[in-house]
Amino acid sequence: MGSQTLMLLLPLWTSPSTSVPVFPSAPDMSEIVPPEVRPKPVVPAKPSHVVPPTGIPPAPLQGSGSGGQGSGGGSTLLGYVGIDTIIEQMRKKTMKTGFDFNLMVVGQSGLGKSTLVNTLFKSQVSRRSSGWSRDEKIPKTVEIKSVSHVIEEGGVKMKLTVIDTPGFGDQINNENCWEPISKYINEQYEKFLKEEVNIARKKRIPDTRVHCCLYFISPTGHSLRQLDIEFMKHLSRTVNIIPVIAKADTLTPEEKTEFKQRVRKELEVCGIEFYPQKEFDEDQEDKADNDKIREAMPFAVVGSDKEYQVNCKRVLGRKTAWGIVEVENPNHCEFSQLRDFLIRSHLQDLKEVTHNIYYEMYRAKRLNDNGGLHPISTSNSTQESNL
Amino acid sequence: MGSQTLMLLLPLWTSPSTSVPVFPSAPDMSEIVPPEVRPKPVVPAKPSHVVPPTGIPPAPLQGSGSGGQGSGGGSTLLGYVGIDTIIEQMRKKTMKTGFDFNLMVVGQSGLGKSTLVNTLFKSQVSRRSSGWSRDEKIPKTVEIKSVSHVIEEGGVKMKLTVIDTPGFGDQINNENCWEPISKYINEQYEKFLKEEVNIARKKRIPDTRVHCCLYFISPTGHSLRQLDIEFMKHLSRTVNIIPVIAKADTLTPEEKTEFKQRVRKELEVCGIEFYPQKEFDEDQEDKADNDKIREAMPFAVVGSDKEYQVNCKRVLGRKTAWGIVEVENPNHCEFSQLRDFLIRSHLQDLKEVTHNIYYEMYRAKRLNDNGGLHPISTSNSTQESNL
Repeated sequence: MGSQTLMLLLPLWTSPSTSVPVFPSAPDMSEIVPPEVRPKPVVPAKPSHVVPPTGIPPAPLQGSGSGGQGSGGGSTLLGYVGIDTIIEQMRKKTMKTGFDFNLMVVGQSGLGKSTLVNTLFKSQVSRRSSGWSRDEKIPKTVEIKSVSHVIEEGGVKMKLTVIDTPGFGDQINNENCWEPISKYINEQYEKFLKEEVNIARKKRIPDTRVHCCLYFISPTGHSLRQLDIEFMKHLSRTVNIIPVIAKADTLTPEEKTEFKQRVRKELEVCGIEFYPQKEFDEDQEDKADNDKIREAMPFAVVGSDKEYQVNCKRVLGRKTAWGIVEVENPNHCEFSQLRDFLIRSHLQDLKEVTHNIYYEMYRAKRLNDNGGLHPISTSNSTQESNL
Repeated sequence: MGSQTLMLLLPLWTSPSTSVPVFPSAPDMSEIVPPEVRPKPVVPAKPSHVVPPTGIPPAPLQGSGSGGQGSGGGSTLLGYVGIDTIIEQMRKKTMKTGFDFNLMVVGQSGLGKSTLVNTLFKSQVSRRSSGWSRDEKIPKTVEIKSVSHVIEEGGVKMKLTVIDTPGFGDQINNENCWEPISKYINEQYEKFLKEEVNIARKKRIPDTRVHCCLYFISPTGHSLRQLDIEFMKHLSRTVNIIPVIAKADTLTPEEKTEFKQRVRKELEVCGIEFYPQKEFDEDQEDKADNDKIREAMPFAVVGSDKEYQVNCKRVLGRKTAWGIVEVENPNHCEFSQLRDFLIRSHLQDLKEVTHNIYYEMYRAKRLNDNGGLHPISTSNSTQESNL
């Protein structure tokens, strides 16, 4: 709604001294047949909030309909209408329907991807936890494997799909090993598009689009690898990438700070935009919040699915001979920061950026390639050539 | 999401006696390449809610990583993840963007349409209040006039557009006078569709679609007029219609009860489905709530934009020689019931039914007529022939 000028109705009013209606006269936005809203910002002032009648006791008023004298300059608030109940109505709907979240994890084997995802969602939601043996062989090519669970909390159901990419970066020659991943991501856009252009559509289009790609950087302490740069360069155009430094317990605080700085620098030099992308900040508030996050990224994290007793509290951690790494202790690593950012503040935004930016870009390209016609009548081969 | 089987993850877990991960093993929903969710309802039990760690103090646990003995059958809740923060994230987004609501009023002149809308929104939001003189001539044909305002309450901004239909039912011959209204409604669907199939789409498609049509029934005490039936019969296929009995202060309680019953009966006999339509109830809870509303409809209402002092309180009302009709007093009329239903409980649903049902029907018909191609390349003349 960025470009839409909002016209604000002044809810303050003065009691009338005649029998004219007491409601504040709000300037019209339009008067046309058929109507198109042409905003005239007559009242550019900050909006006065309308509060429920109990908020401020109404000032005494003589019956205005009887032509009695009004209270002159005395102003009060209008009665409560209930506009803000829309939030509660939306909450109820979300409680009923639940929502989808599709998280992809990418990185070399052994960086603790599955464990981190399990730690994020406090349950065994990763592929590895669900029947795969730890001795599973590393595949010869990159594979895409996904597993879905429903997690419920506070009455809200999330269908979480974790998409794993075993084999990524594990070959002798890792050239173009980002391609199957890019292909998978685009296929999900294509699926959504096919559903969207269908004549008889589902009420809710099943959403398998990747809302977020967690990219695991090896905690080398040196710099990014060429493969990291290649992957993020190519994929940051089609998906929200959140880079994280894996297994950060191998880094001292000084090493960590230095490594993070170096990684940020390299990403900048290579022109890689990770999530939250600067260009998609919606306003100053957004920008201020996201700047803080961008400056703290990539988060250096430790995951664990084991619990230990520390100061009479059970904490998730990794026990070593020299102490316990507490994953949710912000002095030990940045796991909580990642979790708060990914789940508690930006999850909805990740979904919206996926839909409004990446999916829209895919769709526009797809329709343009197809001469403006929707892709329903095209053969399947077009789908593949569209990466 | 009606048809989607949700698989629930059991968040309760038992402390392990070995060093295996402590997270509950959740059954997979799928394991496929590429993934498609194939739900297997392994845990059909009611979901246990995950509560924040502060909710229940964690039971003592020896470090499970040290291979110590677990607490056996003792189960506790997992830590708090933050799934339910999605509600707060959505609230924030709604506070920023605001929302649209487009309300149409239809009925003969003199039934108090403008006053009722002003009463509903506690401000002068109707066309009549915005510069039209009361002496304005009744137009010779049905006209469609709209006016938009932004109302803010509790920090939530609603862009309300009130669409008036002066001239409806006011002619000597009122044959087909529902046609311009039907045409207008369809034109808004067409506009939305045109935007939706555009290659470069707006992030938020401007929504001018009529979310609700308040139809004003004259309080004759007899029965519906033929025009009422004709209008609702034709329009109930394309828009949410909420019939109301206007100027209900002319009816005694007994007359009101009888008239309402008769109107409901007539609507049923004529097969007219008004909002909330039985066929769109989503579940038993919905049905139970809506049954109560349907049985109380059509609400017999009185509007007023004048205030009076009644028992030391200022109330909106109509003062007569024999007493004051208080519009928000449920003993006097059913205005509050209508307001609660329209604004405080069903506003979001009115928008969703408009989008999911009526717009989808329009779209499907439009695309079918066009041989499955989207209407972008068709001439404007098709638009008109599509009513």
